[in-house]
Amino acid sequence: MVGGMTDEQKTLAFVVYPGLTPLDLVGPLQVLSALAQMDPGYRTVVVGASTDTVGTDTPLRVAPSHTFEEVPAPYAVLVPGGTVPTLRAMADERLLAWLRTAAESAQLMTSVCTGSLILGAAGLLEGKQATTHWMLRDVLAGLGATPVARRWVEDGSVITAAGVSAGIDLALHLVERLAGRQVATNVQFAIEYDPEPPQGALDWANQPYGDLKPLREHTLRQGLAEHPELLGRLLAHT
Amino acid sequence: MVGGMTDEQKTLAFVVYPGLTPLDLVGPLQVLSALAQMDPGYRTVVVGASTDTVGTDTPLRVAPSHTFEEVPAPYAVLVPGGTVPTLRAMADERLLAWLRTAAESAQLMTSVCTGSLILGAAGLLEGKQATTHWMLRDVLAGLGATPVARRWVEDGSVITAAGVSAGIDLALHLVERLAGRQVATNVQFAIEYDPEPPQGALDWANQPYGDLKPLREHTLRQGLAEHPELLGRLLAHT
Repeated sequence: MVGGMTDEQKTLAFVVYPGLTPLDLVGPLQVLSALAQMDPGYRTVVVGASTDTVGTDTPLRVAPSHTFEEVPAPYAVLVPGGTVPTLRAMADERLLAWLRTAAESAQLMTSVCTGSLILGAAGLLEGKQATTHWMLRDVLAGLGATPVARRWVEDGSVITAAGVSAGIDLALHLVERLAGRQVATNVQFAIEYDPEPPQGALDWANQPYGDLKPLREHTLRQGLAEHPELLGRLLAHT
Repeated sequence: MVGGMTDEQKTLAFVVYPGLTPLDLVGPLQVLSALAQMDPGYRTVVVGASTDTVGTDTPLRVAPSHTFEEVPAPYAVLVPGGTVPTLRAMADERLLAWLRTAAESAQLMTSVCTGSLILGAAGLLEGKQATTHWMLRDVLAGLGATPVARRWVEDGSVITAAGVSAGIDLALHLVERLAGRQVATNVQFAIEYDPEPPQGALDWANQPYGDLKPLREHTLRQGLAEHPELLGRLLAHT
């Protein structure tokens, strides 16, 4: 208690685990750290099993600011996705236990890309509408969720975003929800988010899904080789 | 030399320095690492003064994969931006010396956001068209460049991008330049880059520039306090 303040800062916790896709994490982290700079009612933290450096699916290594134990009751949680390492994280009981405990008090449980598969493995998508990377969207049904093809999907306190770059859109939506539209616009100017995809919008009629289908099944089998029951539930929806 | 191959992989080097804005780095790194996965002719590396972890302008810490000395002749270089720490990096002689040496053989010298100020401090923007974060665009003139208000600006081998999130657009442009449009589209699907900014496009007629002008001068003075000559050159263009 400092200066008579009784309100605590609301903690927005970003999860790190080995092998994640760093853009899933850093897009929303940059956006919500800008919110925290503009509004001292919020702080961002990066949580992991330890504060040691872990690898990602790029040559960059990253390190959390806090351990799971140091952040037992965050206001909001964001889980990033990835490929094989994310499927492995679906069976990380320490991560899952932390998510279940956090969800008891958190006002927002969110994910980017295949991070929603981890939320689902923790039992947090049961009966919820949710999304993930377009290539794996249908396997959400194996986790009790109803898959939805949108940039982000809000179902009560659970908000899931589509693949990788969708985390930036999700995060700007969260800023508006937490602090209003003007603050969200200020953050958008701060990160100069005025996208000009050089190849234009994605042409979903020509998505390379057919080419990638064998890769998808290979990824699932590789990530969940030691968890045949879970693998079976997901493969049943491919 | 393996299997009679004589061509070496082309190395795309992403620069890390303390205090950077991680989205400037990770957006393009994710895109070009996807290229490297699709085309073994390329590899991405993250370079820094050491491979130790450094802080960013968020609670995330990051660590390079290689030291500057280990990557003396990259095919392409990308320098991310930031706020006060980036201005300090403009006077980091070891970083500037590495950039000047790399520029002698590199086919592409690129930057995101205020990373272009570091390229400029190394003398690499002399006589070039360039851009940076919209708030600091005009100070590029103090580094010998002609400021241009575009998402990214290509002037021969030097390509500079606008603020923070513009690095994703720059990187997809680079993929198309290096590997063609179909590969760029495949990468775009992989990161599901189909932006839907929740607050719409930025309304440049209502940019908060006036409100932020004192912050801009404060940032310049704080970052370059020990380098009055350089500070003077930049302030002359504010």
